[in-house]
Amino acid sequence: MPDSLSTTSVPLPLLDRIRAIVGPKGVIEDASEMRRYTVEWRDIYVGRVPLVVRPASTEEVSAVMRLCYEAGVPVVPQGGNTGLVGGGVPHEGGNEILLSLDRMNRILAVDPVGYTMTVEAGCILKTIQQTAADHDRLFPLSLAAEGSCSIGGNLSTNAGGVQVLHYGNARNLVLGIEVVLPDGRIWNGLRALKKDNTGYDLKDLFVGAEGTLGIITRAVLKLWPKPKDVATSWLAVRDPAAAVEILSGAHAASEDNVTSCELMSRQGVEFVLAHLPGTSDPLAARHDWYLLLEWSSSRPRREGSASMAERMEAYLADCLERGLVLDAALAQNEAQAQAMWKLRESHSEGQKLEGPSIKHDISIPVARLAEFVGKGIAAMKQVVPDCRPVPFGHVGDGNLHFNCQSAPGQDKAAFFAQAEAISHAIYDLVTSFGGSISAEHGIGRLKIDELPLYRSEVELDTMRAIKRALDPKNLMNPGKVVRI
Amino acid sequence: MPDSLSTTSVPLPLLDRIRAIVGPKGVIEDASEMRRYTVEWRDIYVGRVPLVVRPASTEEVSAVMRLCYEAGVPVVPQGGNTGLVGGGVPHEGGNEILLSLDRMNRILAVDPVGYTMTVEAGCILKTIQQTAADHDRLFPLSLAAEGSCSIGGNLSTNAGGVQVLHYGNARNLVLGIEVVLPDGRIWNGLRALKKDNTGYDLKDLFVGAEGTLGIITRAVLKLWPKPKDVATSWLAVRDPAAAVEILSGAHAASEDNVTSCELMSRQGVEFVLAHLPGTSDPLAARHDWYLLLEWSSSRPRREGSASMAERMEAYLADCLERGLVLDAALAQNEAQAQAMWKLRESHSEGQKLEGPSIKHDISIPVARLAEFVGKGIAAMKQVVPDCRPVPFGHVGDGNLHFNCQSAPGQDKAAFFAQAEAISHAIYDLVTSFGGSISAEHGIGRLKIDELPLYRSEVELDTMRAIKRALDPKNLMNPGKVVRI
Repeated sequence: MPDSLSTTSVPLPLLDRIRAIVGPKGVIEDASEMRRYTVEWRDIYVGRVPLVVRPASTEEVSAVMRLCYEAGVPVVPQGGNTGLVGGGVPHEGGNEILLSLDRMNRILAVDPVGYTMTVEAGCILKTIQQTAADHDRLFPLSLAAEGSCSIGGNLSTNAGGVQVLHYGNARNLVLGIEVVLPDGRIWNGLRALKKDNTGYDLKDLFVGAEGTLGIITRAVLKLWPKPKDVATSWLAVRDPAAAVEILSGAHAASEDNVTSCELMSRQGVEFVLAHLPGTSDPLAARHDWYLLLEWSSSRPRREGSASMAERMEAYLADCLERGLVLDAALAQNEAQAQAMWKLRESHSEGQKLEGPSIKHDISIPVARLAEFVGKGIAAMKQVVPDCRPVPFGHVGDGNLHFNCQSAPGQDKAAFFAQAEAISHAIYDLVTSFGGSISAEHGIGRLKIDELPLYRSEVELDTMRAIKRALDPKNLMNPGKVVRI
Repeated sequence: MPDSLSTTSVPLPLLDRIRAIVGPKGVIEDASEMRRYTVEWRDIYVGRVPLVVRPASTEEVSAVMRLCYEAGVPVVPQGGNTGLVGGGVPHEGGNEILLSLDRMNRILAVDPVGYTMTVEAGCILKTIQQTAADHDRLFPLSLAAEGSCSIGGNLSTNAGGVQVLHYGNARNLVLGIEVVLPDGRIWNGLRALKKDNTGYDLKDLFVGAEGTLGIITRAVLKLWPKPKDVATSWLAVRDPAAAVEILSGAHAASEDNVTSCELMSRQGVEFVLAHLPGTSDPLAARHDWYLLLEWSSSRPRREGSASMAERMEAYLADCLERGLVLDAALAQNEAQAQAMWKLRESHSEGQKLEGPSIKHDISIPVARLAEFVGKGIAAMKQVVPDCRPVPFGHVGDGNLHFNCQSAPGQDKAAFFAQAEAISHAIYDLVTSFGGSISAEHGIGRLKIDELPLYRSEVELDTMRAIKRALDPKNLMNPGKVVRI
């Protein structure tokens, strides 16, 4: 069995046979051309492979996998290479093949009546969103990397984003998948069924497995009615507890049409305002906490019935009266709504431009979110007293990006030397809240050694048993999620 | 390895040790008392066990499982014994232990703010529904057996019901579970998290596994806002194609508040009217096809805004004009709504009282539902020309109970002799539509030998690999779902 971290090279005859399967367009071997596949986009990992293979069909993926399986060569599947935990990046040893799905990027079918779309795994998320919109439908997965991430990667990581609250995460947006197994066999689970109780839920096992059990090659996605009446507001709120309360009441006030509810702190917003050109504060005064609230209805505005904006306004007036909301700006047009979203979606960029930061993608039960924010900030400051906490995220999911920005001008190396202590302080607290150390980004390579600290031996052991059962040679994206 | 169909008996010392763990209240050994556990409720299977064990806690379940694992004795877990495929019924050989969860029936916690409820697996579904309602919340799982089925069984079978359209099936109603593994180890996955991407999705593997991978002992359920404004109508519709079109438009017209959309044929309704006292036809004239449509909003009716009933009425007027709806009755009060639901929910009883029938629980892509109904009826009649097809079910899920009633006065044995031919005709058609031979009931014992005919060898083999990995001795509800 090959050790994924060894420097054993891939046998040359295997490379020849792979070239023969996929043809000249299907391989990249030039070192500089390979970099966009082998280097993690934030330069955290720099992998090395002899060859990037880009199959054009499921059959080609299958043939390549079969060869690698027989030769005992590990394969790293990759979508848009936008992941945040190194799940799609090869190791440094040069003994793995990188298999990119980027040539399998076709929309295969759209069924607006049945509310489904069938796509190849390499389809860019944005293309899927736009195709749905062209058919008066919505594919609700929405996240910062949507212009370059692929649906195969989204499914393999069970991606989250800003509309999980209403539509669920990627797992909930897919009806069926096709998977090439580690030995090259093809599982056709490409079913467009809302209900199917014929045995174990294989689909949900491959979704979120980060390519360690097989390669998702095609998918039948669910579509929703396209929103016709959207209200967006930017709120200054009393505190995180108020944010939870505002959301709790918003469900009924909007008739279950809350599609986003994003919490931000002044600190995070300030980084955006300072570094991103063209951004401005929608409110006159400074406030400590903000909420971006969006309600969407699939029913067009009509005479004699209150629009979403009118209903939201009425609800916010009530929240102002109760002291939950301190000030509010309701977007008057699409441009204003987009400007509010820009403040939210530039949070990562704002932090990056401000300087070094240590990131956490955690979740806790929604009801305890406010309590966690207070204790989490205190825990962070106990380790690094002058750090600048930047908590933000998805209130309805109990999912916070609980980041820690270095003090202005602090030495980068000295700051990162504290990374482990900060992360463990946060993760220990998360665990005491019954939470998760990876709400939406996954485990990949980044958290593979953290997972055993925060999940039970029984849980890890069950995962390992599944991994061994489906990938007995440990050739499928080894060294990610779980070690066997 | 014991053969589950052999007549090897369970070692007596093991029974003594089990008695010692659970005490006198925890065992039933009297043959007549055991019958309500060992006999399938429709008398399709009559199992035999030396002992029914009824643990009072997860720890007792764990201790019993450990003993049985060491002794190599198979265990059949059981909830309310209301399943439709024999998944919870022991075999005839007498070499299995039946483990009932019926003493573990406590509600452990209700969190209305976080919209969760934590329960033991033996909790009766109705109790859970009522507890949610007492807290102004909704637990949306709703099905005919709700007064006696248990949540552990609902989760183990990934139960469906009449509100899947809006809320999803049981899989979508649970955040976390606790499972006792075949060797007695306890997996605590009892997390109240909306998002958690820390490794493989174990929860969804145990949900729907019909007790063949472990025993679900506790669960954290999701709650929803309680509906405050509900509109129910009974419609005569042009045909099944019209039903699909009515539902398709209803999403937007109701602002995504369609909670049920149930199709029935005149034949099924007639059996109910003929055999169930106190039922009556809501409409004056006879029609071939009916639809029960329900819209529910969590926002109370208020001045100046159209109620659900008003909106539904406006939409139905439009559907009447377009010839989709032929006649309609809108429930004016709760009693009228219940009377409409009684016509739908008594369908199984009506058929039972009418005489023998052969049942199918199938699903197909929603967009092709009408086409399937036509071809399915033709396929049935080709095998048994004078049979009476009774198709009914959940339009939004593409899930039909596609039943076949014998001709009046037909000999029972002669009718059932044709069962396999009828079922295969239907299942072959389902497969040609990319459908499922078990949409919500599961595989259990009833369909274990059908599954390999309608699912690929790759799929079966992957299921077997998982079963072997998690239950290497094949002691966990053997002979159900998949054979290894």
